Amino acid sequence: MSTRRDTYTPETLLEVAVRVFNERGYDGTSMEHLSKAAGISKSSIYHHVAGKEELLRRAVSRALDGLFGILTEEHARVGSAVRRLEYVTRRTVEVLVAELPYVTLLLRVRGNTDTERWALERRREFDHEVAELLKEAVADGDLRSDVELRLATRLLFGMINSIVEWYRPEARNAANGAQVADAVVQLAFSGLRTDDRPSAGDRWT
Amino acid sequence: MSTRRDTYTPETLLEVAVRVFNERGYDGTSMEHLSKAAGISKSSIYHHVAGKEELLRRAVSRALDGLFGILTEEHARVGSAVRRLEYVTRRTVEVLVAELPYVTLLLRVRGNTDTERWALERRREFDHEVAELLKEAVADGDLRSDVELRLATRLLFGMINSIVEWYRPEARNAANGAQVADAVVQLAFSGLRTDDRPSAGDRWT
Repeated sequence: MSTRRDTYTPETLLEVAVRVFNERGYDGTSMEHLSKAAGISKSSIYHHVAGKEELLRRAVSRALDGLFGILTEEHARVGSAVRRLEYVTRRTVEVLVAELPYVTLLLRVRGNTDTERWALERRREFDHEVAELLKEAVADGDLRSDVELRLATRLLFGMINSIVEWYRPEARNAANGAQVADAVVQLAFSGLRTDDRPSAGDRWT
Repeated sequence: MSTRRDTYTPETLLEVAVRVFNERGYDGTSMEHLSKAAGISKSSIYHHVAGKEELLRRAVSRALDGLFGILTEEHARVGSAVRRLEYVTRRTVEVLVAELPYVTLLLRVRGNTDTERWALERRREFDHEVAELLKEAVADGDLRSDVELRLATRLLFGMINSIVEWYRPEARNAANGAQVADAVVQLAFSGLRTDDRPSAGDRWT
């Protein structure tokens, strides 16, 4: 047990917990691990929170609040579906980058506890909102209809969510959130090609 | 210890091992877990392989052989860079779907053992080959140059690699490999928009 004075606030303790959860996995993290990482006793941690599940709930809540907050912003509510979708895509990337450890944890949640199942359910709700926008934009004729809707949604989120796997803000010359968001929007909506009308012979299968 | 007769071949034992590795993580899997999952004794497993690291090496080799095999195919070697890149993208998705558990394992490798570090190194080599194609296609003027090359490569692989997280071939109405590959190529190269020339006012930041 450390004798170091407990100078933690719920906020800074959360930061340590999220780092440990992301390193060891939530299942693989014990109160002992958290106590060691924070350099305070387990009873000091219990002074702040009821247990590790409360830390998880607070952490994923922060990520979810950031994501659902986007949907209440004006540009997510007003305008054509395709522009709202682009806006939500851009802001999702920005929130992901700004709240990187929290969204990373949210995306790694497995569903073994009530809190994890609740987080998965909320994530699905967010994905569903975006899928609805996509559907509406296809109906408007602004998005191509030859890519199946569910596949398109999966791939769009696959691209966005992959950011937590490779984005390192501390890297030299790391792109900032707005730059990553730009790249995602460009790629997802306009594609990589300068000419997006491939000739008939341009397909191999 | 099970008395069940050992009817395993190295191939079928590998299948069981890959499933367990993907479920528990390679680090979290012991020979005991493999023995239980296979329903044969540990000594029977040692009859086939030197240990779990050999099973890992065989499994990721299978994934890597599939991926590197693509680069030797004619359409990956002949033609414009952009068409070779599209071909490699399509085939990468097809190999990923065809060898789903093996590629899943490859993508989850962490780097704690020599075999894992070797697998990571080979994966980087493959990514590098694709990044070179992308670079060449940008130089040819066939791919947009306003998305930074490294970001574009990361996002392209992010989208492709996400497939192992959500694709379930056994799901009702599951798309097949060619359909998923089509969707990836359409999205990545032509984007989701029907009109890919957004007006100047179409950007929020």
